[in-house]
Amino acid sequence: MRDDAVDVDVRVRYVDTDQMGVVHHGNYITWFEVGRTEFCRSRRFTYRDLESMGYRLMITGLRCLYRKAVRYDEVVTVRTRVKDLRRRMVTFGYEILCKETGTLIAHGETRHICLDMSNKPRTIPESFRNCLDRGIDGTA
Amino acid sequence: MRDDAVDVDVRVRYVDTDQMGVVHHGNYITWFEVGRTEFCRSRRFTYRDLESMGYRLMITGLRCLYRKAVRYDEVVTVRTRVKDLRRRMVTFGYEILCKETGTLIAHGETRHICLDMSNKPRTIPESFRNCLDRGIDGTA
Amino acid sequence: MRDDAVDVDVRVRYVDTDQMGVVHHGNYITWFEVGRTEFCRSRRFTYRDLESMGYRLMITGLRCLYRKAVRYDEVVTVRTRVKDLRRRMVTFGYEILCKETGTLIAHGETRHICLDMSNKPRTIPESFRNCLDRGIDGTA
Amino acid sequence: MRDDAVDVDVRVRYVDTDQMGVVHHGNYITWFEVGRTEFCRSRRFTYRDLESMGYRLMITGLRCLYRKAVRYDEVVTVRTRVKDLRRRMVTFGYEILCKETGTLIAHGETRHICLDMSNKPRTIPESFRNCLDRGIDGTA
Repeated sequence: MRDDAVDVDVRVRYVDTDQMGVVHHGNYITWFEVGRTEFCRSRRFTYRDLESMGYRLMITGLRCLYRKAVRYDEVVTVRTRVKDLRRRMVTFGYEILCKETGTLIAHGETRHICLDMSNKPRTIPESFRNCLDRGIDGTA
Repeated sequence: MRDDAVDVDVRVRYVDTDQMGVVHHGNYITWFEVGRTEFCRSRRFTYRDLESMGYRLMITGLRCLYRKAVRYDEVVTVRTRVKDLRRRMVTFGYEILCKETGTLIAHGETRHICLDMSNKPRTIPESFRNCLDRGIDGTA
Repeated sequence: MRDDAVDVDVRVRYVDTDQMGVVHHGNYITWFEVGRTEFCRSRRFTYRDLESMGYRLMITGLRCLYRKAVRYDEVVTVRTRVKDLRRRMVTFGYEILCKETGTLIAHGETRHICLDMSNKPRTIPESFRNCLDRGIDGTA
Repeated sequence: MRDDAVDVDVRVRYVDTDQMGVVHHGNYITWFEVGRTEFCRSRRFTYRDLESMGYRLMITGLRCLYRKAVRYDEVVTVRTRVKDLRRRMVTFGYEILCKETGTLIAHGETRHICLDMSNKPRTIPESFRNCLDRGIDGTA
């Protein structure tokens, strides 16, 4: 694991599969979200904290490139890092890897804007920025 | 359609299937919810109205019996009725039917308690009760 | 509706919402899939046909840009067209619109490669290509 | 943990919540499935094995009673046991507990019939029966 990325393992559930016999592509988006959550938690900041401070991250863009299929009961590693950080926006990058072999299954990114509870764009609060910043250079 | 029930058609989505090649059993629960929503709408009451009045229905019980499998792109009819109505509780009954053949695919019920926004059990408000009542005897 | 696009309406389900009070961004991916299915059906070709002929479309890329939030019980129109068609690949484009106001809620695209049942890339079969082609120039 | 039950922890994902601010009731059904999978794995039998032997378990009934709400980012423990075992049928029982406090959040059961790949009811194969049996009395 590169020191600016955070890994979390997810086991494929039966409900994640479709009749092609592999994981339905929509589930990768859920895994990205799991990755984001764990990225923040590993930096001692939970997304729940952000919401309780009166902020939220609204997604503005999503991209995913699919390389390999994954099957029921396999374990994937979701590797998350901060790719770009602006005053009001943050872009997370993700890799989905086969835990056993390390093969790249998919990769992608999501972009988010920081809003307050009345949906106005706001500067990312400092405590959350600190959490994200450490993601970029691997230091506090 | 019996006059105390409300029918709504749902087409099976690819994402609803699993690697068995049929609809995953969890989706029937979503269809029940679609049925409840349409039951209320057909009586000119939307669940959104209930929430905007400061109430909500919290599910307390769920039962589903599965008879036949359903496949991608098939259309099912969700038939919903009120099975029991108490001061603070309502039980909806559901049948999932193959639209083309009328075959029973599954049936079940959900029980709900009426809460206010501070999670206290409350008498079902009259406007919503009227909507549900018509469901039982088929008259206004 | 432009003549090379196909529209289908989808009502937001309660399960589609998240605690932000709006539709969770992952559901847009499901709506894209509903749009693809209806695009083909409107050209008298169902994706089920393709699978029964021994082919399938594997997704290779996905992009979605989010503009506006959508709420429970609202109806969105999914507008689907073919953006690019190669020998073995097809790219669909999508717009998610508020049915009532026509406001653009989101737009995106998915790219797919045609595989046979042993996962080998294959030329898109002619009957399916005809269905897709009409999508591009609006004529049969 | 009672010795005939198997526990597995699941962290609530953001996508699991709905606009009530709590986990949508349909997700409990997914958690039951996660519990079943881990029950078998802990007895060194994976559901994947069963499918590769030419069998599958088709759900015939589902029941869930909801006691408490769960929120985003909380961890629940899914406790699974075998409640009833017949020649061709098995009933699993589940408790969903708050990991931190041990509070019961929900409980329920699912009943399944063993089918072969042509959908004929079949005697549960011995290797799978052994896995399930140990579930009932806690011994091999």
